[in-house]
Amino acid sequence: MRKERDLLAIGHTALDYIIQVNEFPLPNSATTINNMRTFHGGAAANVAVVASTLGLESSLVSAVGGDFPGSDYQNHLENLQINLDDMIIVGEDKTPTAFVLTDTNDDQIFYFYWGAASRFKESPVPEDAIMNVQAVHLATGDPTFNCRCGEFARESDKIISFDPGQDLHMYSPQDLLDVLKICDILFGNHHEIGRILESINMNIDQLRDYGPSIVVETRGRNGSVIYSDEKIQIDAIERDPTDPTGAGDSYRAGFLKPYLEGEPLEYCGKLASAVSSFIVEAEGCQTNIPTLEMAKERMGNSLE
Amino acid sequence: MRKERDLLAIGHTALDYIIQVNEFPLPNSATTINNMRTFHGGAAANVAVVASTLGLESSLVSAVGGDFPGSDYQNHLENLQINLDDMIIVGEDKTPTAFVLTDTNDDQIFYFYWGAASRFKESPVPEDAIMNVQAVHLATGDPTFNCRCGEFARESDKIISFDPGQDLHMYSPQDLLDVLKICDILFGNHHEIGRILESINMNIDQLRDYGPSIVVETRGRNGSVIYSDEKIQIDAIERDPTDPTGAGDSYRAGFLKPYLEGEPLEYCGKLASAVSSFIVEAEGCQTNIPTLEMAKERMGNSLE
Repeated sequence: MRKERDLLAIGHTALDYIIQVNEFPLPNSATTINNMRTFHGGAAANVAVVASTLGLESSLVSAVGGDFPGSDYQNHLENLQINLDDMIIVGEDKTPTAFVLTDTNDDQIFYFYWGAASRFKESPVPEDAIMNVQAVHLATGDPTFNCRCGEFARESDKIISFDPGQDLHMYSPQDLLDVLKICDILFGNHHEIGRILESINMNIDQLRDYGPSIVVETRGRNGSVIYSDEKIQIDAIERDPTDPTGAGDSYRAGFLKPYLEGEPLEYCGKLASAVSSFIVEAEGCQTNIPTLEMAKERMGNSLE
Repeated sequence: MRKERDLLAIGHTALDYIIQVNEFPLPNSATTINNMRTFHGGAAANVAVVASTLGLESSLVSAVGGDFPGSDYQNHLENLQINLDDMIIVGEDKTPTAFVLTDTNDDQIFYFYWGAASRFKESPVPEDAIMNVQAVHLATGDPTFNCRCGEFARESDKIISFDPGQDLHMYSPQDLLDVLKICDILFGNHHEIGRILESINMNIDQLRDYGPSIVVETRGRNGSVIYSDEKIQIDAIERDPTDPTGAGDSYRAGFLKPYLEGEPLEYCGKLASAVSSFIVEAEGCQTNIPTLEMAKERMGNSLE
């Protein structure tokens, strides 16, 4: 029997390439990349990394490529004591990769390579990993794998949070109904929550009766709203944002840490907001992560 | 004093990303990558790898990133006994990277990241590496670094070949005159040789009087022409080409191997042609490399 852990994040571990060009080339022409940086990313890994830094004993289940074992990324996760025993290693493919290209007009083009993550579909539910945690967070990733993992987690009486994020378009209305039925907390930005409600043809109250008793809607610099038995408005902590990517994932981790310790929802939202205010101050989803003390201090200051 | 080696290739070691998409996205939209493979590339490394496989004791000087030490690519080069003692490691940058995107219409877009190679400019001439070889091949890379290395190699009485390749546009006419003055062999495809002659305002005979006594013009499936005291036409060995990239670099290595052993130019061209006929049969610049015996056998068969 493994030692009980706090949180299992299921979904993408990915590499992010942030690329700057003068202009996007036309077909059959070339351009020089002015700057290129790579960052550790993927929504599930982002949540696990921030949660771990905040003090949650975290595990991660992602489908990654043959490039992952021995990589800097693996070392980084292991240094954070994140349990990787149930990672799905697809030797003949690559770790999912996102390319974000920005030109001098600040227009952007996004390329996503699903890679090893295409094997989620046929992968068995990581039963041991689920059994041995208090809570399971279903992040971006394959809808059917998330459904299967969620159902097993439900049978095992785990706390389940769900954040389909940018993979929302891959969920059929029935997929959504299946996962929403068994989850306790739904996270999404305001666009995503809107699209989910439209897709399943419910309003927030109907959704909360049907599935998650808590719906957390993040609104960027407009803060966040927690729908529970009451509607709680959380202000954003204003910071000069360098890079908003990863803010949402860090909010989820920052919310789950106090939530799993039984803190009231308003406190969870405020700590989450403080955590994400650090992430936007630096490029990358896993850079400038605060410790719990740093987040609490900023949260405290914002209340004065 | 180091052991004398055969060939030093100077210029790019790079990573090639071969990416397939349904269509190129418009600004501010996203697309899924259907397939992505990475290959070892960079013209200098391609030449060193093929030359080494053919039996030349090869060395390589490239500017590579902090990602290079311990990488698969480094291991691959070391397994081929390529001497890497004078590689320029730029810890805070990345190994040069090329992204080649192809859509379903077979239209292509090219992105090049110069990365660590921007440090060639300020790097010292690798004098020891040059002193300890019979011949120096100046491949794609920084013009001023190539000039400086070429001048030192000339003073040291080395055989010098030059192939500006896709970096030709970075050479001013004076840069070209400086390198051409000191080289023995100029390699280029027919477009490149044409542009070089135009840039320095000479014809082939004037160029051969001025600098390289041998000019080798590769013409894809139309074979190659060697301009020396006589003009030698070499037929291509017809193969069903899967991927033409790397054909030129492998031709250079296949030419230099017999050339450094004193074989006649026609033989050099024919062996080079046989070597490159293997490279086009598989994707990537460093895949499907023949041994010397395999290349000779195909060359022999093509003469029958």
